[in-house]
Amino acid sequence: MPTSPDSPSPAAPELPDLAVIRAAAERIAPHVHRTPVLRCSALDRLAGARLHFKCEPFQRGGAFKVRGATNAVLSLGEEEARRGVVTHSSGNHGAALALAARTRGIPAWVVMPEDAPRVKREAVAGYGATVVLCEPTAEARAATAERVVGETGAALVHSYDDPRVIAGQGTVALELLAQVARLDAVVVPVGGGGLISGVAIAVAALAPGTRVLGAEPAAADDAARSLAAGRLLPNPPGRVATVADGLKASLAERTFLAVGRHVERVVVVSEEEIVAAMCRVWERMKVIVEPSAAVAVAAVLSGVFAGAEPPEVGVVLSGGNVDLDRLPW
Amino acid sequence: MPTSPDSPSPAAPELPDLAVIRAAAERIAPHVHRTPVLRCSALDRLAGARLHFKCEPFQRGGAFKVRGATNAVLSLGEEEARRGVVTHSSGNHGAALALAARTRGIPAWVVMPEDAPRVKREAVAGYGATVVLCEPTAEARAATAERVVGETGAALVHSYDDPRVIAGQGTVALELLAQVARLDAVVVPVGGGGLISGVAIAVAALAPGTRVLGAEPAAADDAARSLAAGRLLPNPPGRVATVADGLKASLAERTFLAVGRHVERVVVVSEEEIVAAMCRVWERMKVIVEPSAAVAVAAVLSGVFAGAEPPEVGVVLSGGNVDLDRLPW
Repeated sequence: MPTSPDSPSPAAPELPDLAVIRAAAERIAPHVHRTPVLRCSALDRLAGARLHFKCEPFQRGGAFKVRGATNAVLSLGEEEARRGVVTHSSGNHGAALALAARTRGIPAWVVMPEDAPRVKREAVAGYGATVVLCEPTAEARAATAERVVGETGAALVHSYDDPRVIAGQGTVALELLAQVARLDAVVVPVGGGGLISGVAIAVAALAPGTRVLGAEPAAADDAARSLAAGRLLPNPPGRVATVADGLKASLAERTFLAVGRHVERVVVVSEEEIVAAMCRVWERMKVIVEPSAAVAVAAVLSGVFAGAEPPEVGVVLSGGNVDLDRLPW
Repeated sequence: MPTSPDSPSPAAPELPDLAVIRAAAERIAPHVHRTPVLRCSALDRLAGARLHFKCEPFQRGGAFKVRGATNAVLSLGEEEARRGVVTHSSGNHGAALALAARTRGIPAWVVMPEDAPRVKREAVAGYGATVVLCEPTAEARAATAERVVGETGAALVHSYDDPRVIAGQGTVALELLAQVARLDAVVVPVGGGGLISGVAIAVAALAPGTRVLGAEPAAADDAARSLAAGRLLPNPPGRVATVADGLKASLAERTFLAVGRHVERVVVVSEEEIVAAMCRVWERMKVIVEPSAAVAVAAVLSGVFAGAEPPEVGVVLSGGNVDLDRLPW
């Protein structure tokens, strides 16, 4: 990590500020949907809160990820862009980067674990990117991506440890805050922390009275543990067993910095709560959410907002890419 | 049917006009959602059209039916309302009337066929109405509803043969035309014809250049046959075999009048096309639609808009109430 000559400690990782997130919003606007915010009285009653669901399953590519990927791809210089982009991703970011690359007309390589859901592999290939399969470990994914970089000269666009990606994900909050007059809290699922970092930075700047809460599966609770300990405590190496396959990643130094500054707490939910919440959203809201998105719903249904006066709560439904033939109920 | 003294022919059935539909919109506004319009580039490519999906699965009760039911219930006089309302319905209208009655605080009875989907029976009961089961024939349903009227004095609110209900359903078009700048056509599923009647009347008044097309399962194609013949040709008595359980009803004289005046044609689709369209909407749009709603999608995917310049087409996704444990693929 480069350090400035007059600073003995390593430089803090770069994070976008509100101006950078606003610039990202302008940059990606022609290429992404402004997704609707839906209400559901049945879920309001269960949560004891007035919920405002920001519906990223309706985003291009079926998840918020196209925001950050598009911002990163459009931020590349002409020459750099021509060599293409590469990433490793369990699914949604890979599809999003493939989509963003197609938008700009440049090649993309996506390194995916062999056990990624069929629908996510097909989406990546369908957007015209080259799928490179590897062992389902963090090490194998990073090493394979590095190899592709060496072979092609393509630019690596990490799925969350990248300020351009975080800025793009933060545009979710710009829209949500414009769509709902007042929010007491916003609840966001946490995997590697790109989404919650962007959202938390935007919310802290625009609505400092609005609390930002994370939501995490108990089987991949590194953000909750890291926040409690005040230092990065990644999920143990090896396979993390959660139905929320999009949230298996651990925070990076960069996203931990944003979470530590702006996130009040991270709510941890069980696998049973995730599946039950997913089923309720399908049944009552008619929105197809994937388990990773249901984690935020499970958090609001777990009683965190129980109190006298139901608060106004934004819930980010992060994506809806699921195998319809392999439902978890 | 009453006739006026100076008119030798029977009076034409009453239909709402634009002013009546606008009054309905104002009346029901506090009690229904203004549903979003979504786009999907994958479906655009398949249809050869630019599709604008009006998403009534996100409506209260999971379908457009609450619009008409609420307008009817709120149109009742105080005394009449106190005795409650009754209807017979294969599902969505029953739930909608139950919901509307709860809104006004009056009792409701819903006559449902024994083979109605579980999720629809539970919805009706969940809204506090009394479910009265009967044989799954049109005759048994009407007779049972008449019996309940006799026993309770409740007002019958037919699911489509009622100008107050048609006016309420027409509010879908008021919203759609306000949400999309220009539409070359609107495609609407047709069962008993309440929805398409209200939509067609509003579109004819507000956007006379916009074509209105119906969509119907081949197994319940009475509207297509009636339109071609110029007279009512109901579906044969007995059980109609289509996965689109919401579209088994036949047009009434009233809705046939509106369809004959304002609907250009009714596109007929097969069971296979309905299931395939339903699956595509789930996979690509992440919206849970029921088979009856998928019928309109199947119609636009059947090639009716194939041509040089992709037209702007509104598609009414009418509802999303399905048994998640009993998917047709």
